[in-house]
Amino acid sequence: MNKWEKNVRKVVPYVPGEQPDNINIIKLNTNENPYPPSENVLKAISEIDYNNLRLYPDPTCNILVKAIAEYYNISDNQVFTGIGSDDVLAMAFLTFFNSDKPILFPDITYSFYDVWAELFGIPYLTPELDNNFFINPEDYKKENGGIIFPNPNAPTGLYQPLSTIEDIVKYNSDVIVIIDEAYIDFGGESAIKLIDKYDNLLIVQTFSKSRSMAGMRIGFAIGSPILIKYLNDAKYSFNSYTMNQTALNLGAACIKDKAHFNKTVKKIIDTREMTKKQLAKIGFSFPDSMANFIFARHKDIPAKELFLALKQNNIFVRYFDKPRINNFLRITIGTDEEMNTMINFLKNYINKLSVRQSLI
Amino acid sequence: MNKWEKNVRKVVPYVPGEQPDNINIIKLNTNENPYPPSENVLKAISEIDYNNLRLYPDPTCNILVKAIAEYYNISDNQVFTGIGSDDVLAMAFLTFFNSDKPILFPDITYSFYDVWAELFGIPYLTPELDNNFFINPEDYKKENGGIIFPNPNAPTGLYQPLSTIEDIVKYNSDVIVIIDEAYIDFGGESAIKLIDKYDNLLIVQTFSKSRSMAGMRIGFAIGSPILIKYLNDAKYSFNSYTMNQTALNLGAACIKDKAHFNKTVKKIIDTREMTKKQLAKIGFSFPDSMANFIFARHKDIPAKELFLALKQNNIFVRYFDKPRINNFLRITIGTDEEMNTMINFLKNYINKLSVRQSLI
Repeated sequence: MNKWEKNVRKVVPYVPGEQPDNINIIKLNTNENPYPPSENVLKAISEIDYNNLRLYPDPTCNILVKAIAEYYNISDNQVFTGIGSDDVLAMAFLTFFNSDKPILFPDITYSFYDVWAELFGIPYLTPELDNNFFINPEDYKKENGGIIFPNPNAPTGLYQPLSTIEDIVKYNSDVIVIIDEAYIDFGGESAIKLIDKYDNLLIVQTFSKSRSMAGMRIGFAIGSPILIKYLNDAKYSFNSYTMNQTALNLGAACIKDKAHFNKTVKKIIDTREMTKKQLAKIGFSFPDSMANFIFARHKDIPAKELFLALKQNNIFVRYFDKPRINNFLRITIGTDEEMNTMINFLKNYINKLSVRQSLI
Repeated sequence: MNKWEKNVRKVVPYVPGEQPDNINIIKLNTNENPYPPSENVLKAISEIDYNNLRLYPDPTCNILVKAIAEYYNISDNQVFTGIGSDDVLAMAFLTFFNSDKPILFPDITYSFYDVWAELFGIPYLTPELDNNFFINPEDYKKENGGIIFPNPNAPTGLYQPLSTIEDIVKYNSDVIVIIDEAYIDFGGESAIKLIDKYDNLLIVQTFSKSRSMAGMRIGFAIGSPILIKYLNDAKYSFNSYTMNQTALNLGAACIKDKAHFNKTVKKIIDTREMTKKQLAKIGFSFPDSMANFIFARHKDIPAKELFLALKQNNIFVRYFDKPRINNFLRITIGTDEEMNTMINFLKNYINKLSVRQSLI
């Protein structure tokens, strides 16, 4: 080891879902949207002024903040934007979780929360989800330094009704409660309607899933003006110019096309429900997902085996080798055609296996 | 104050140079390049595949890393990229400055260093520059937890020869030394040539100045493969997908056009030297800048007065109300035409003032 290495931060890096170059792969591993974004975005690309690239972007992200505020019928000062919801969430951890008491999030949840907590030296506790993967609200009524969880939860897809969210936010009026709504557009009801009532509530969403813009890295937070001001102050102190001008313009163009959004979200929900039925028929069970993925296990065949078999056949899904969830596959909802290809492969694989076993 | 506010991080946000909407302004306040980027970038914009925006970007930033490595004739594993050099520098602070001993940087320097140090709880000391704004290398031969300074320095523009850099890096083999070369292309010699010799040396550069791409937010670090690995590990643990695919593609297109780069950099250097002569003629003095700005003060008129007079006439320069430098203007090098307009305004302003004073 080099002399200078003793003071280097050593972390176990998060391994993101693979982004293979092979275009023949059916990619159901990172919860991307199978449909392109609005054609508004195409127009906004053609309007990029390359001469203007020499200038710094607008640090207030005005064009995008305004478009989001308009969409949700809230004020500009209730919106904060960042480089994907990961950037927004990390900034929120840094800004709002500064207590000596532990923050709370579920044992099974988005895999970045514990990483950020450790990075920023934030103590944390992880109350266990129940056996059906639901949150027990009572677990979040203990002394804490803040609360965060996704709704719907990842990687289970389970949605908690707004009454549960309100119950938790109301009880914890002395800390910030962050609801990570990356998947809310696929069937749940957003807690955005609660922000005027609870100024300790922050909602975080993303353009990466329902809005087909994972490639542009756009996330946002919605909350009371005072929370948004604290977030902006922290951001300006860290890196004033984060989102590039292209992301701001393309994001604003994207969110204005509500018709395209409604159409593709509905299509994904329909495909999800069709997929649930098909998977159930061939021996899978799963929490009743309200997200753009299904978290499924098979009654006989280990998830890891299926994961590898699918991968060998150019169908990528996600497998987490972690306690309590290491017999599940997280399958992103693609097009009907992609899902049918996957289901047919699984059907054949399972059949062949049963035939082989009945011959033994 | 709300109950939840006691645990909120409160910071004094950095105030970036203004980005006015008014296009009639001569904007010499944020060290932007007055010339557009390479026409390669125009072509890369026309090739953006909007359908692909639905997919996450390449987390390894391969296309851009390769292009930078090729340009500097180094290996891919010696290059790290991020969202502007601010993102790269912040990540480097977080990764490399974890000692209990203070890190060192000059008292007059880039205004983000102390902010990041405080954000991450890093102790720091700020040795004073000498009266001519030069670093005294002996100040950096004391026990420390790491070293960072810009070369050329900001906001003075002063360049330290490579021998001084090597002297400091060599002496401090037990810590990481970061050289922030945001302005190196305007006349200095980069320390990149030292990276194979010193594995504790990290060089940080940006596309925002010499490469006319401030709007796309592209920065990079160059160092030994082991330093780059530590940076990538920290990045992946924080936010795997940072740079959007458009920035990666446009950045790669940009750096390949060496001819355009050489031409515009030479033009800016010529304009800077012309501007120095003109400013000297009307009573200004300044450190001999090797950057794309001049840090100037007038023998009779306070900088703040000139700053406000220029602003009223739609000429924006930068003024820092800080000890030791509060009688200087930082003037970005624009086009010849912009500089002549500014010089003529200053000439008239100073003349009118002298006439008025001689009449009293």
